[in-house]
Amino acid sequence: MVDLPAYLEERRQKVEAGLSKHLPPPTTRPFILHEAMRYAVLAGGKRLRPILCMASCEAAGGNPDNALLPGLAVEILHTYTLIHDDLPCMDNDDLRRGRPTTHIRFGEANALLAGDALLTLAFEWTSRVPAPHPYPPGQVALELAIGAGSQGVIGGQVEDLDAEGKPVNADLVDYIHSHKTAALIRAATRMGAICAGATPPQLEALSRYGECIGLAFQIADDILNVTSTPDQLGKPVGNDAALRKLTYVAVHGLEASRIRANALIDEAIAGLCLLPGDPNPLAELARYTIHRSK
Amino acid sequence: MVDLPAYLEERRQKVEAGLSKHLPPPTTRPFILHEAMRYAVLAGGKRLRPILCMASCEAAGGNPDNALLPGLAVEILHTYTLIHDDLPCMDNDDLRRGRPTTHIRFGEANALLAGDALLTLAFEWTSRVPAPHPYPPGQVALELAIGAGSQGVIGGQVEDLDAEGKPVNADLVDYIHSHKTAALIRAATRMGAICAGATPPQLEALSRYGECIGLAFQIADDILNVTSTPDQLGKPVGNDAALRKLTYVAVHGLEASRIRANALIDEAIAGLCLLPGDPNPLAELARYTIHRSK
Repeated sequence: MVDLPAYLEERRQKVEAGLSKHLPPPTTRPFILHEAMRYAVLAGGKRLRPILCMASCEAAGGNPDNALLPGLAVEILHTYTLIHDDLPCMDNDDLRRGRPTTHIRFGEANALLAGDALLTLAFEWTSRVPAPHPYPPGQVALELAIGAGSQGVIGGQVEDLDAEGKPVNADLVDYIHSHKTAALIRAATRMGAICAGATPPQLEALSRYGECIGLAFQIADDILNVTSTPDQLGKPVGNDAALRKLTYVAVHGLEASRIRANALIDEAIAGLCLLPGDPNPLAELARYTIHRSK
Repeated sequence: MVDLPAYLEERRQKVEAGLSKHLPPPTTRPFILHEAMRYAVLAGGKRLRPILCMASCEAAGGNPDNALLPGLAVEILHTYTLIHDDLPCMDNDDLRRGRPTTHIRFGEANALLAGDALLTLAFEWTSRVPAPHPYPPGQVALELAIGAGSQGVIGGQVEDLDAEGKPVNADLVDYIHSHKTAALIRAATRMGAICAGATPPQLEALSRYGECIGLAFQIADDILNVTSTPDQLGKPVGNDAALRKLTYVAVHGLEASRIRANALIDEAIAGLCLLPGDPNPLAELARYTIHRSK
């Protein structure tokens, strides 16, 4: 069995140290930009995406340290999406993880540019990671670009914004969740698998694992937005409903949302039998995805 | 000698065809985003960056077609910087190349996301281009990431915004120009050299060539902003002064600006003798950089 809290804490510390080391120091020019980048990235958080990237590499028989830099890239790319999402022309949020959002703290232009710079830096990092045989050498960066691009995360954001205030629609909420949230988590698990030189069926299993827990993660977020308190969540609750956001809960209700999230976790775990490494950390991480309190 | 207008037109058509082919079609979801991306990219323009990328590859002894995809990536990355620069929280421009800017036509959120998607797509394209021996396989994408990042283009943008309305400062205008404009043009010429498998001295010559013409290009832009008409330029003129932008002309005056631009072009051309291929296209392109009317 896995001592999940200890495992998460050990890996989280590795991620924090890596981020702090690899982000440009605040003492290099342009100072305000580097300060804003570090403010947004080094704000805590669960670091689930890099932890999943490393765990996927390990489960596919690789050394998890080989997946650290790609995992850090996924994390700062995730941070850029949060900075841009929070901007006034998007969700217009003032608070994130209990602190002022980046544009409140550094101004809109610097927040926009800090997001752009983190997105760019994610590709600087991944382009330094050659994929092992039999993958093409640029495969790690390519997975990140596809997951984050117009037919990945950004596609989900566009449809999410467009859907606000419109009638609920089951197909559309599936599209939004699978693109806005699952695409990047799937990219993280695929990148980990590739760093291990996974076989095609192993890559496919980890890809589906990432997809399933990504969807379950977003459904859990939708549930927490209804059932949690601002103190627990570190941000306002109930704003999905106020903004008439298209959520899984709005379409299917709380009970059906819980059932679906559990079914996705079961499916994610079922595929792990194809992997050469210990499946327990990924199985525990899958369950944690929906049983967290924030 | 080179028939420059015919050369530019032939290469420009190749670039236009490549962009139209490789950009996501407007018939794929998310429709509005892909439409916005194509609207911003396929708006004409000189396509100097991809032409320089291909010409650098050829001058270093390579096949220019090998540098087409990296060149296209530089071009769409350049377009993303224009979209984000035009946003209300940045320069707040309504007009670009005689047409409404992307956020005027598609709304701020879609413009922000179209810029993000083009930046991401630039790395999807470059991560498909392996660098030849002796370069590490991810070197093409890495050059683009470094040129576009917080210590490249974005660094220049941050300092440019910060400098508005402040006293003129010769060091600062050099920093802004070398980062905001020259860094990406230098990345284009370096990527072309790398695609040709250039030797270190050849890479260095093309790197310095890109740096020099990038600086000259921006000084020429500063000059045109003072001396041109809106009809010639396709955008308002004199707005640098109105915004109290830090330009080379504001610091050094028109005459000294012209002298400096010419000296940079001479330096760029002088280094071309190290290259195995025909230096004439690059020499003509260098002169064109400062003798254009828009």
